[in-house]
Amino acid sequence: MRTRIENVTLVTTDEANHLYPQGCLVIEDDTILALNDFDLEVDEVIDGKQGLLLPGMINTHCHLGMIPFRSLGDDCPDRLRRFLFPLENAAMTRELAQASARYAAAEMMLGGVTTVFDMYYFEDALAEAMSEMNMRAVLAETIVDFANCDSNEPYGGLAISEQFIAQWKNRHPLITPAIGPHATNTNSAEALKQAQAIAERYDVLLSLHAAEMDYEMEMFRKEKNQTPIEYLESIGLLSPHLVAAHCIHVHDQDLRLMAQHGCRIAHCIGSNTKAGKGVAPLKKMIEQGIPVGLGSDGASSGNTLDLFSQLPLVGKAHKTANHDRSLFPAKEILPLATLGGARVLNLENQIGSLTPGKKADLVLVETQSVNMYPIYDPFSVLVYSANASNVDSVWVNGVQTVKHKQLVRHDLRALRADLEAKMQVFKAEALRRSEDL
Amino acid sequence: MRTRIENVTLVTTDEANHLYPQGCLVIEDDTILALNDFDLEVDEVIDGKQGLLLPGMINTHCHLGMIPFRSLGDDCPDRLRRFLFPLENAAMTRELAQASARYAAAEMMLGGVTTVFDMYYFEDALAEAMSEMNMRAVLAETIVDFANCDSNEPYGGLAISEQFIAQWKNRHPLITPAIGPHATNTNSAEALKQAQAIAERYDVLLSLHAAEMDYEMEMFRKEKNQTPIEYLESIGLLSPHLVAAHCIHVHDQDLRLMAQHGCRIAHCIGSNTKAGKGVAPLKKMIEQGIPVGLGSDGASSGNTLDLFSQLPLVGKAHKTANHDRSLFPAKEILPLATLGGARVLNLENQIGSLTPGKKADLVLVETQSVNMYPIYDPFSVLVYSANASNVDSVWVNGVQTVKHKQLVRHDLRALRADLEAKMQVFKAEALRRSEDL
Ligand SMILES: [Zn+2]
Ligand SMILES: [Zn+2]
Repeated sequence: MRTRIENVTLVTTDEANHLYPQGCLVIEDDTILALNDFDLEVDEVIDGKQGLLLPGMINTHCHLGMIPFRSLGDDCPDRLRRFLFPLENAAMTRELAQASARYAAAEMMLGGVTTVFDMYYFEDALAEAMSEMNMRAVLAETIVDFANCDSNEPYGGLAISEQFIAQWKNRHPLITPAIGPHATNTNSAEALKQAQAIAERYDVLLSLHAAEMDYEMEMFRKEKNQTPIEYLESIGLLSPHLVAAHCIHVHDQDLRLMAQHGCRIAHCIGSNTKAGKGVAPLKKMIEQGIPVGLGSDGASSGNTLDLFSQLPLVGKAHKTANHDRSLFPAKEILPLATLGGARVLNLENQIGSLTPGKKADLVLVETQSVNMYPIYDPFSVLVYSANASNVDSVWVNGVQTVKHKQLVRHDLRALRADLEAKMQVFKAEALRRSEDL
Repeated sequence: MRTRIENVTLVTTDEANHLYPQGCLVIEDDTILALNDFDLEVDEVIDGKQGLLLPGMINTHCHLGMIPFRSLGDDCPDRLRRFLFPLENAAMTRELAQASARYAAAEMMLGGVTTVFDMYYFEDALAEAMSEMNMRAVLAETIVDFANCDSNEPYGGLAISEQFIAQWKNRHPLITPAIGPHATNTNSAEALKQAQAIAERYDVLLSLHAAEMDYEMEMFRKEKNQTPIEYLESIGLLSPHLVAAHCIHVHDQDLRLMAQHGCRIAHCIGSNTKAGKGVAPLKKMIEQGIPVGLGSDGASSGNTLDLFSQLPLVGKAHKTANHDRSLFPAKEILPLATLGGARVLNLENQIGSLTPGKKADLVLVETQSVNMYPIYDPFSVLVYSANASNVDSVWVNGVQTVKHKQLVRHDLRALRADLEAKMQVFKAEALRRSEDL
């Protein structure tokens, strides 16, 4: 099956960041066959109506199960320990996490995200959900030093992870298993080393929250006179397997270490700034040659899971932090959401740019809405004017999942009704806890 | 004519910030007649479908004529002198500014803004445009020390302003004239004083850009050993007439002076951070009791003219600048876009909250889209999840201007086609200039 999408500007975000006005793209089955070849015989032609065609965006840090938390305790200083952990323990179930993941996939695809790196619980259920939704995902079971919704004992995630990885590794075109020790300070050195051993044994990515929290920084300084990154190096956790989320409070030396060891970073500017935590040194990360992608974080922290919410903030936060309007031009920001994310996930040979031979993960952004005119510079428009609602169509692995701003294969109302039905106990508990605020 | 909007949560942003789940609101002609009175006889009932009903948002700093600049030279450091001023001189016309204003009004109303404070050229033409579009506006002709598209000589705006104010003062329910000397450093002290005299004589607002630019700060420091605000005070420009836009670089003493003199501030966080200029001390402004509203700035600087683009950034920028997640909770951010803006524009008796007796400027935000679920806290959802595309319906002065996300009284495609037709010379000139980049 061959499909040509024409009457579009191709925003390739490839190595040279090629832009082709009035271009076309041909999909063959699950793959991008050609760019700008109007002569190839095709079975179907899609008129892109002067839209912008770009690679599917890649959300490198998310918690798929956390839709039920959205808008709960947003401004509460101790919310992690007040809402998140207790509510997860009291009311998060396999069924709820799975319904949340389906809804999250719908939200992301409707907003132009085609690949997500998740860290949550019940990852086998989430893998099924992502398969059903036809969304690409790298999935990591959380490992943490307390009993939780998915495990009756601390570090139960280690065994779950190994089983999950063995079960899903190289079994599904869209699903890649990984491992997810929660954070530098919520796992013992021993547990982190065990997770690392699993990552190496199965050759999967390992993600954790690092250099994010004030109290994390303080603890490592006091107890070990180290930064969290120095600590990770000292126990052998810095490696090409590592996708470190946040890295807000990293020194130059931390970044040099990360670069030397081939680590990657998921930059979550929206979540970080909404929590008042700080602005990570993105410029230095990139200068060190560290692969950097963008992450929404969970709906609890980042509220919306699309990356259009992150793009303008990348420009605004980092131009301001560096007091320089010319830094991070839009044409350098957009690729962080595509090719940068693909590098972070070790999937740059498969996704992240409009390149023949790569998988057909595509987003068509319409330019008819009021905010999308005029267009001198498609990068500027995508970074500073567009929002998730401008996504007209989405393809994942050659399958169209969004068409004219609606899910093709699922009914959003049904997904919401299903989530709502499974959320009753959770909601009652959440409301009870927020009344004490 | 009486209309009841029911099945909505009323987000009043009144003095007490009342929230009424499952409320209703009755409009009588151009006025809010009652809240939550289900017994009043009405001619029409509108089902709000569990949406959020809020007062129309108030954009306190915008340049309506600048839609033609959107996405041009966004990352260019000297764009004011490279693109803006030269292009305005070479290719901005009355017809183009007016077509741009119509388009800008459409964009704002589709995004939930019902009142704008504009500073541009050809203000009589813009007043006609806003009247046609049925949007509320405070309009100020720009006064500047060089010849420009609306005047063959420096300071021509002074005479134009006086004529414009005399013509429009108290003549139209939606239009309020004002005066707009461009900035502290682009007008002589004499011109500023003349503008102030006009503001006092006609009792209108005076807006100017202040404490925004590095070179502005440097110039006043070097030449006068003053801050721009101290300078303004020394020449009699600080008064309740003043709406100062930006005020990024203001000291505590500047803010005390502004508070003492009853000045107001248009806070443009998006434009300021995108330009890398800095984060204005919003917390201190509010602590000083200075009325503060939000502004998008022109499409050239702020890209989108709705205030949903500003709301999350207010939280993120100021929580981060103060390193405190609990600062600026969502319920304090939303009112900046409504009641705060009304105070800035001296219109708090007419607009800015859902209060019986105020004008029926209303926004109905739908909650069916994927990003709008779940809702524990409507403020959080409006500030951190919603975007302009969630606006379902808008009323200005009791007249519905947006229904189910479409303009009621105008055709967006026609407005765009008209603007495009009038933009040909401008566009050619803009492309010529950007090719040199
Ligand atoms: Zn996280
Ligand atoms: Zn301005």
